[in-house]
Order: sequence, then C-alpha cells, then structure tokens
Amino acid sequence: MIAVLAGGVGAARFLQGVVQVVPQKELTVIANTGDDRDFYGLRVCPDIDIVIYTLGGVVDEKYGWGIRNDTHNTMQQLTHYGNEDWFLLGDKDLATHIHRTNLLRQGKTLSEVTDNLRARFGLELRILPMSDQPIETHIKTPAGLLHFEEYMVKRQSVDEVQDVVFVGAKEAKPAPDVLDTLKAADVILIAPSNPIVSIGSILAVPGIHDVLHEASGMVVAVSPIVGGAPIKGPADKLMRGLGLDVSAVDVARCYRDFLDVMVIDEQDAHLAGEIEDLGIPTVVTNTIMRDSATKAELARTVLQAAGRQV
Amino acid sequence: MIAVLAGGVGAARFLQGVVQVVPQKELTVIANTGDDRDFYGLRVCPDIDIVIYTLGGVVDEKYGWGIRNDTHNTMQQLTHYGNEDWFLLGDKDLATHIHRTNLLRQGKTLSEVTDNLRARFGLELRILPMSDQPIETHIKTPAGLLHFEEYMVKRQSVDEVQDVVFVGAKEAKPAPDVLDTLKAADVILIAPSNPIVSIGSILAVPGIHDVLHEASGMVVAVSPIVGGAPIKGPADKLMRGLGLDVSAVDVARCYRDFLDVMVIDEQDAHLAGEIEDLGIPTVVTNTIMRDSATKAELARTVLQAAGRQV
Repeated sequence: MIAVLAGGVGAARFLQGVVQVVPQKELTVIANTGDDRDFYGLRVCPDIDIVIYTLGGVVDEKYGWGIRNDTHNTMQQLTHYGNEDWFLLGDKDLATHIHRTNLLRQGKTLSEVTDNLRARFGLELRILPMSDQPIETHIKTPAGLLHFEEYMVKRQSVDEVQDVVFVGAKEAKPAPDVLDTLKAADVILIAPSNPIVSIGSILAVPGIHDVLHEASGMVVAVSPIVGGAPIKGPADKLMRGLGLDVSAVDVARCYRDFLDVMVIDEQDAHLAGEIEDLGIPTVVTNTIMRDSATKAELARTVLQAAGRQV
Repeated sequence: MIAVLAGGVGAARFLQGVVQVVPQKELTVIANTGDDRDFYGLRVCPDIDIVIYTLGGVVDEKYGWGIRNDTHNTMQQLTHYGNEDWFLLGDKDLATHIHRTNLLRQGKTLSEVTDNLRARFGLELRILPMSDQPIETHIKTPAGLLHFEEYMVKRQSVDEVQDVVFVGAKEAKPAPDVLDTLKAADVILIAPSNPIVSIGSILAVPGIHDVLHEASGMVVAVSPIVGGAPIKGPADKLMRGLGLDVSAVDVARCYRDFLDVMVIDEQDAHLAGEIEDLGIPTVVTNTIMRDSATKAELARTVLQAAGRQV
C-alpha cells in the first residue's frame, strides 16, 4: 500500500503519474485541508477538490483547479448582492461546495463527504482529509494574520511573511485511518507540494509527524523547488519568511526527521551532495511534469527509489 | 398606505400594475412563505423571489419565476452528485438562495434578508415575509403528507387533496410590522393568488386573520378564479379538495370574515349577485393581465373600488 501526502496542483499532477503505474486501489491520498475556507457560507476545500477534479479528468488544466469550461453566473449574481469576488468559483464547482456543505450540515464528516465526492467521480483510490476538524493556515504579515487564501489569492502573496500558524491544529485529530494508513504503508510519498503550507499543515496535525518518524515504510519526497524557485505558488516567499533557503536542500531539511529518500530535479543535481550530507540519500531525475509520459516516468522513478518494483 | 397580501406569479403580475399607479414607497407586500423549502441545504422562498424578480425586471416572463436567460450548470452538477432535480434552480437564481442562506446562518431574520435582496434590486416598496419563523404548507393526500412544492412541482398536482396543513403556523408569529402595517393601512389588497395555499397560509399566521377582521382600511380581493378555473396553478384541485366550488363565489367565501369588496372578471359577471348575497359588494372588470396596460388598468379599478383616487 502507498500513502501520498498531498497539497494542490503539484500533488494532483504527480498523482496523475502515480495512477498510471500502480492500481488506484493501492493508493491513499492524505490531503491538506489547511487552505479550506467558507465562501458565502459554503465550505470550500481547494486541495481535496483539485485532487478529485484532476484525477476525475474534469479539471481546468490551464489553471490546475476548477472544472473545465465552467461558467460563472452564480458568482456574478452573488457579487451583484454585494459579496466578495476574489476567489473564483465556477457554477459546476459551486455544486461541489453546495453538496459538501449540505452533507456536513447533515452531520457527515469531511472524510465521509470526501469519499462521497470521490465515488461520484469514479475514483478508486482513497482520499482522506488530514483531519475532520477545521484547521486553517494563517500567514502572519505586517498587515496582520491572513487566512492563506487571503494572503495568496486576494492579496497575491505581496505581504511579507513573518510566520505561519495552523489555527486549530493543536485541538484537531487526524481523520480516521490517517495514522493507521501511514503505519501500514510500504511506501509514503510526499508530493511536490509547498513544504510550509501544504505538507507543513499536514505535519502539524497531532500524531502525524511522530507516526512518520516511526513508520516502517520508505518515506520519499519530491522537491517542489527546482532551480531555486517553486514550479507554482508562493513557496519561495513562505520559505524565505521562515528563514529557509529557497532550495531543494531546505525542503529536505523540512522533512529530515523522517525522510528516507529525496528526489530532486536534474537542474539541482549539484545540490545532491549537500542533501546527502544531511544523511538523506538523493535521487536526481527530471521532475518537470510536462505531459502524461513525464508524469508516469517521475512516478516510476520515485516508486523505484522507495524500493517498489513498477 | 397600501398593504398587499401576495402569493407568487399572479400576485407579482398584479403588483406590476399597482406600482404603475401608486408610488412604491406607499406599498407594503406581505408575502406567503408557506411554499419555502430547503433544496441542497439552501433556503428557497419561491413567492418572495417571484415578487422581487418580477418587480426588479429580471424574471423569466415565460414561466413567471426564475431569472431570465439563466443557465443550469450548478444544478446539472448537483444532479451528477445524486441530488434531486425536480425543482429547477438556475445559476443566478441559486445565488439568491446561497446569499439568503448565508445571511440566515449569520443570524439575520428572513425579514432582514428579504429587505437586503429588495434593496439589491433597487425596489422601494417594502416586502415583509408573513413570518420570520418557518411555516410549511403541506397537502394531505392518499400518498401521505406532501410539502406543497412536492405536491405541485414534483408530483404535478396529481394526488387527491384531502386537507391542507400549515406546519409550524401555530407556533409562528407574524414578522415584525406585519400586524401594524395591516392596522394602519388605508387599503388592504388581496392579490389574485391561490386562496388556500398562498393567502390561506398568510391567514393561518396567528393574529393576521383577526387584524384583518378589525382593520379600518378597506379590504379588496381580486379573484384568481375566472370562468371556473385558476389562471395558473392548482387552486381548482385544492378548493375542490376542501369541499369548495371552484368559483369566484367560493373565493369570496374564503375571505368573507373581513372582505369589503370582491373584484371578479367579466366572464364571471353572472356570479356578482351571488357574492353580493354574502354581503360583499362586487366589482366586475377585466382581470386578465395580458400586458402592462391591462395590469395598470386592473390596479386602478381595484384601488378605486377601495376608495382611493388614482
């Protein structure tokens, strides 16, 4: 069994490769929910939806999120009613949030709702939210504490990052099966996601870091930083804000407590020695996922690095 | 000041005439909320929305409800998630229900939310829900007790009507200002709406019937039954189910406790004597609202019957 810690777009594209080389039934995705937020009273879970839409084949490939060819009539009318319009939600996408909110209000857990949506898209892998309790990633900036989506989408990541706070994390529990899945997994993959706000939030859920530390399975991470910059998103600003270098080396440092193998891009081959000096064996390969074939190739390399025959 | 008891499509079209002949600021609409229901966890108030959309100039004239040229992408996706699809909600229309539900959950009353929406459509009349507490009109049938929308829309009014029950009415209160408005009004109009489920539900709210009975203003009703049939909707089936004749005479009987003048259509001129035998003066006029001019003409006749110069 393979577990994958996942954020949004980078993780979803990486998973498109993984599902080409191993059966979905062997996969469990543990998804970041720190980006979750209510819009118009509807619960939006960006990373869970990105994974489901991408693997379900409906994602808007241009952006990596949302549903392809969606319209925006509901949101246009909501804006007419004086509501905020900075987080774009398409009409079909809104159906997901309406459906989820309705089930949550009926007393279902986020795990149950996520599984319901997964099934509707015909997916056979398991997708677990990191927690069924709300945890919200906030960025401490000179302008105050901002919800991550406000920091990134509304304010376009312009604020200086002073700290990152996972509000609610201490009181939260891992969702059912998260710890058991990590304990039982032969392979634990850390997708090329933001180490601070996508993976860091998962690691902030009580119990998860310790279980990874003690896990018997091989833990392999793919660096989302290539050539000193993130492929997508504000990982550079967040890493710098926390005093880290924007490099695959410092991504490895984030995970050093439990990491068995680090996978970095060919562009960063010169950093391999520095990572190995941390005691972490490093694999150098092409990590730029341009198309279906390069995604599969990356997945194959990563799984082989974890000792799995594919 | 003029108060209008209103149901859905017939009332909205009647109000399109009234606003042509009196300033909106003199008007208060008291709207039926017995048809309200949650769909997908969103609060839908069909009659309030019909009045707002119609007077706001955005209604889909073909149906008399919903927003013109709306799309249905959200609902299509909701159906894909296994939800019911028998109550058609357009994408822009859904924005209304999302906005309302969000404000209600924030603790606003239905009166406040309705006023918020009214203002967004630039309307200057007052629109009061009959009550801020939920009251649901249910139809007793051989198939069981059905919410009115289920009876009418889902099951197309095919079930035998055995009784009508206003669930929650006894425990409900009129919305703020409803009773004071009726007490202070010079003229109280009863729109050509279903006497059982549109006006009957308003009359079922504790206090409203008694205030109408004691009202100093003139109470004038327009019959929704013309030539032995309703212009729209299942009023015939409901009246018959409750042992009434489907005629303007029995509409007048529903209101006889407080009615000062009954307005009936020219096609029913032969019934005037029968209504006057009930002690209710009757005005015969064209009540078929084909266009803007006939709507204004009807409003003028009705207001004159109430003793108002227009």
